[in-house]
Amino acid sequence: MILCDIGNTYLHFYNHRNIWKVSPQNLKKDFLDSEVYYISVCPKNEEKLLRIHKQCFDISSFVKLDTVYQGMGVDRRAACLSIFDGIVVDAGSAITIDVMHEGMHLGGCILPGLCSYAQSYEMISDALKKPIKTSVSLEELPQNTQDAMSFGILKSIKLLVQNMAKSKKIFLTGGDGKFFSTIFENSIYDEMLIFRGMEKILENMQKGV
Amino acid sequence: MILCDIGNTYLHFYNHRNIWKVSPQNLKKDFLDSEVYYISVCPKNEEKLLRIHKQCFDISSFVKLDTVYQGMGVDRRAACLSIFDGIVVDAGSAITIDVMHEGMHLGGCILPGLCSYAQSYEMISDALKKPIKTSVSLEELPQNTQDAMSFGILKSIKLLVQNMAKSKKIFLTGGDGKFFSTIFENSIYDEMLIFRGMEKILENMQKGV
Repeated sequence: MILCDIGNTYLHFYNHRNIWKVSPQNLKKDFLDSEVYYISVCPKNEEKLLRIHKQCFDISSFVKLDTVYQGMGVDRRAACLSIFDGIVVDAGSAITIDVMHEGMHLGGCILPGLCSYAQSYEMISDALKKPIKTSVSLEELPQNTQDAMSFGILKSIKLLVQNMAKSKKIFLTGGDGKFFSTIFENSIYDEMLIFRGMEKILENMQKGV
Repeated sequence: MILCDIGNTYLHFYNHRNIWKVSPQNLKKDFLDSEVYYISVCPKNEEKLLRIHKQCFDISSFVKLDTVYQGMGVDRRAACLSIFDGIVVDAGSAITIDVMHEGMHLGGCILPGLCSYAQSYEMISDALKKPIKTSVSLEELPQNTQDAMSFGILKSIKLLVQNMAKSKKIFLTGGDGKFFSTIFENSIYDEMLIFRGMEKILENMQKGV
C-alpha cells in the first residue's frame, strides 16, 4: 500500500519505508507497484495521477477533524489529525499554522511560503532582488538590505508562531519545515506528519470508526 | 518651492499647503509652477520628472542619517530624520520598519507591502485568491480562509513592529499607514513624515550645517 499527498507543486508518496516526491510532469506509468490511497488539494495533479495508475483511492472524505473552520485543505486536516495537542506548521508553498488542543482544532492562519516572500520582494523593486539569508540573526537589528528582508520575513513568522503556540509544542513539516525547526526552541520537525494523519484515518476506516 | 519624493509607483509632491501624488504616466508639462527639491529611489521616474520640468534639484546627498546601515533608501532616511526617537513604519509597496533612538538610527527591516502579500497568495493557489480583510479580529483564531490569510499578514506585521518598538512611539506613513495606525495603540499616522525630513534637510542646508 502506498499513501500519496497531492499538492500544488509535488505529489508526495510514502510506502511505509520511504518518502519521496515527484513533480506532476515527471509522473510515469508503472512506477507505482501497489494500490494508492491519496488526498489531494490540486484537482489537476490528481487527474494526472489517476491517468497513470488505476488502483487509486481518494480517502479525503474520511479525514474528519473536530473544527468549525470552513474550507480547510485536506492535507492540513490530515496533518492536524496526526497530533493531539500542539501547533502544526506546514511550511511549503504556503505556510499554514494550526492550533490543536486536546484533539480539537481551535483555528489557524496562513502566510506565504518562503519562496513566495522572496518573489514578492523581487516584484517590488530591483533593489530587493536578493536571496533570503536563513542565517540572519533574529536578535540584532539588521544593517543592510539582505539582512533587513530576511529578518523581516523570519522574525515576523517566528513571532506569530510563538504567539499562537504559547507553551504548546510546535510540530513542523513541509519543504521548509526542517529549516524552521532551527529557529523554534520547543519544536519537532516531522516530514511524516501528513502521512501519520493518513495512517490514523486508514486505521479508523479499518476499525469502522 | 515644491518638495517631491519620487517612489517606484508614484511621485509625491508637497507645496507647503497640499500633498498630492501623480503616477509617472500622468506627469504633464507645466503642472509645476516653481522650483522642485526632490529625492528619488526610482531613476526611471526621476528622469520623467526632469524631462517635464527644468528647475529640479536633487537633495539626496544632503540626507545624512547617523547610521551604520548600508544601502538605505533616501526616502527611508528622510522619514527617519523627521523624528528624534521612535519607530518609523513606511507602509507602501514595501513596508520598512526603522528604529530611531535619540537621533541615531539603530537598524531596520523590510516586509512586502499589503498589496504584495495579496499578490503572493494569488500566485500560490486559486483557493487563496481573496482580498485582505482589514477588519479581521487579531485576537481570535481565524475560522475560514480569508480570515486566516488576513490574520496571518496583519498579526505577523503587528507582532514584529511591537517587538521592535517596545515602549517607543510608532510613527506611520505611506499608503497603508493610516490603516495600520488603527491596529497599533501607541502610534501616530503622519503622511508628511518624509516631507518633514526633507524640510529639516533644507533648513540645515540654508544654515550651512
